[in-house]
Amino acid sequence: MAKRVTIKDVAKAVGLSITTVSQILNGKGERFPAATQEKVMKIRDQLGYVPNFNARNLISHSMKTVGIIVPNLVNPFFAMFLRGIQDAMYEHECVPMILSADRNEKLEHYYLRTLVERGVDAMIIASSAVGNEELNGLLKSNRVPYLLFDQNDPINEGDRIIVDDERGGELAATHLIESGHHKIAVVLPDRPSQNVRLRMAGYRSALVRHGISVDDSLIFSTELSKAGGWAVANQVIDSGATAVFCANDEMALGLMRGIETVGKNVPQDLSVVGYDDIDLDDYMAPRLTTIHQPVYDMGTWASQMIMNRLRDPEHAPQLKVVDVSLVKRDSVRKI
Amino acid sequence: MAKRVTIKDVAKAVGLSITTVSQILNGKGERFPAATQEKVMKIRDQLGYVPNFNARNLISHSMKTVGIIVPNLVNPFFAMFLRGIQDAMYEHECVPMILSADRNEKLEHYYLRTLVERGVDAMIIASSAVGNEELNGLLKSNRVPYLLFDQNDPINEGDRIIVDDERGGELAATHLIESGHHKIAVVLPDRPSQNVRLRMAGYRSALVRHGISVDDSLIFSTELSKAGGWAVANQVIDSGATAVFCANDEMALGLMRGIETVGKNVPQDLSVVGYDDIDLDDYMAPRLTTIHQPVYDMGTWASQMIMNRLRDPEHAPQLKVVDVSLVKRDSVRKI
Repeated sequence: MAKRVTIKDVAKAVGLSITTVSQILNGKGERFPAATQEKVMKIRDQLGYVPNFNARNLISHSMKTVGIIVPNLVNPFFAMFLRGIQDAMYEHECVPMILSADRNEKLEHYYLRTLVERGVDAMIIASSAVGNEELNGLLKSNRVPYLLFDQNDPINEGDRIIVDDERGGELAATHLIESGHHKIAVVLPDRPSQNVRLRMAGYRSALVRHGISVDDSLIFSTELSKAGGWAVANQVIDSGATAVFCANDEMALGLMRGIETVGKNVPQDLSVVGYDDIDLDDYMAPRLTTIHQPVYDMGTWASQMIMNRLRDPEHAPQLKVVDVSLVKRDSVRKI
Repeated sequence: MAKRVTIKDVAKAVGLSITTVSQILNGKGERFPAATQEKVMKIRDQLGYVPNFNARNLISHSMKTVGIIVPNLVNPFFAMFLRGIQDAMYEHECVPMILSADRNEKLEHYYLRTLVERGVDAMIIASSAVGNEELNGLLKSNRVPYLLFDQNDPINEGDRIIVDDERGGELAATHLIESGHHKIAVVLPDRPSQNVRLRMAGYRSALVRHGISVDDSLIFSTELSKAGGWAVANQVIDSGATAVFCANDEMALGLMRGIETVGKNVPQDLSVVGYDDIDLDDYMAPRLTTIHQPVYDMGTWASQMIMNRLRDPEHAPQLKVVDVSLVKRDSVRKI
């Protein structure tokens, strides 16, 4: 589409042969007078000439581009993850190609294919709907290295960052139990991903360890969003629970809002614990108690692991296990 | 880096010539038996063959990729803008290449160059620090069409989406004045962009029209973020203002939080009006009264305008003026 400035244009403008200009622009112009070299550089900048990366790539087989698929750009958790990735990649003069698949499998498959078509060097996939056929059929067969994030899929053996989500769920439930709560509801997404199921496992084991029987009538599924949390507020209130553990902060924020709108108070009537520790938690009233994931760092780690992989394709599978921690704020009440 | 599956591999596996396979894969295989065509398709999928887009592009001169530069991914306003862009581009089988320049001019220049190097078809630039030399020197000279967003720079004559920010500022101030407020503070970013200056102009003219003199001691500059809003909370309280107009919602949310932390109440002690209408406003306590920008639609409009431009490079400059509206919620008190 765009008609680019070519090396020909530069050569013409400076009145030298293409060969000479190309040698100078590629740093192989020692044998030409300094004045000539400077002149070429000057004209290059005047015309705004930039080398055609794609042409180079067909030779070098490198786009210096890493495809990133996230489920939801609008969730601050992923926005912060992407910032970590971008900052780390900047150090390597590498550029992330970010796509948000909105938890839509069709879209995910299409984007995965699109990124392979565009010849990305590697991919970071933070999207639970990507199945093993796609990974094998599309990425492995095209030798596109990839790193899985926010999935914890035990089946897959590639480079991965996994979060100790079971411990996260356990920390959340234990904090509520030690605050005197025994009827602890859970709000989780429809079609929970593996890492959400692990958070649930942690919640269950904490209850069991404290001799509290797990009551499935206290488990509420909803859309993985603020609106989803809001939507189940009444059911949670009617359940008679005194506390709620939400599988992510966005649902927790929506739930708190829904609780207030019917005249109830957090934490007086209902204590709430979230998951992620997005920066918003500090701006809520009450400030949200949650499980912290170092998501910015996770973005930088993901980038570094992918860079290692690109430098050494034969590198043994890399696994980074990320620890989580409880952040106490104002949304839990001792009873 | 990645060793891709080639058409050669497919041909070899299926036992046909490359020419035959390529004709079939390019939909020009009518003259071959249906069984042969199916076999080729089957093998293609088994091997996970995808055409090399970059090679094709050097011929078609199209990457079907549009570079997008935003100032800040973490601001939900831009996250929603990007979602609008992505959804609209999906319709055109086009992919956005998103970079967040974090209001860092050096980074912006680097990313602008990087996107040109990668041969994007066009760019959508929502970043006020991009100057005219860059636009002319890098984009125009390489014939990369671009659209400016969230800038309202009157100097520039390319395709643009401009928001009626002066009216926005006027609506905000007028609502506060009609609610009985006369000491109305303003919180705006250091180095305000043109669109913020227009919001200020609207604020001023509303005051003047109501015979209220503009008091510059009520104008507070801070970082364009939630933290920035929080940071000036005490100064705003000490100023004796009864109301505040914030140049965006993120600053407003931080300001409200800062006001609460010192034991004051919104809107009892201080009324607050924001700008943008990010989805979070509904989840705040109190819910934030603000100026609505249809940012998701703005993303889809931006994509459509860029698509028009790519279809018809000679198209007359396109200008879309976006109207704004006041959204009354719970953060303003009548006095």
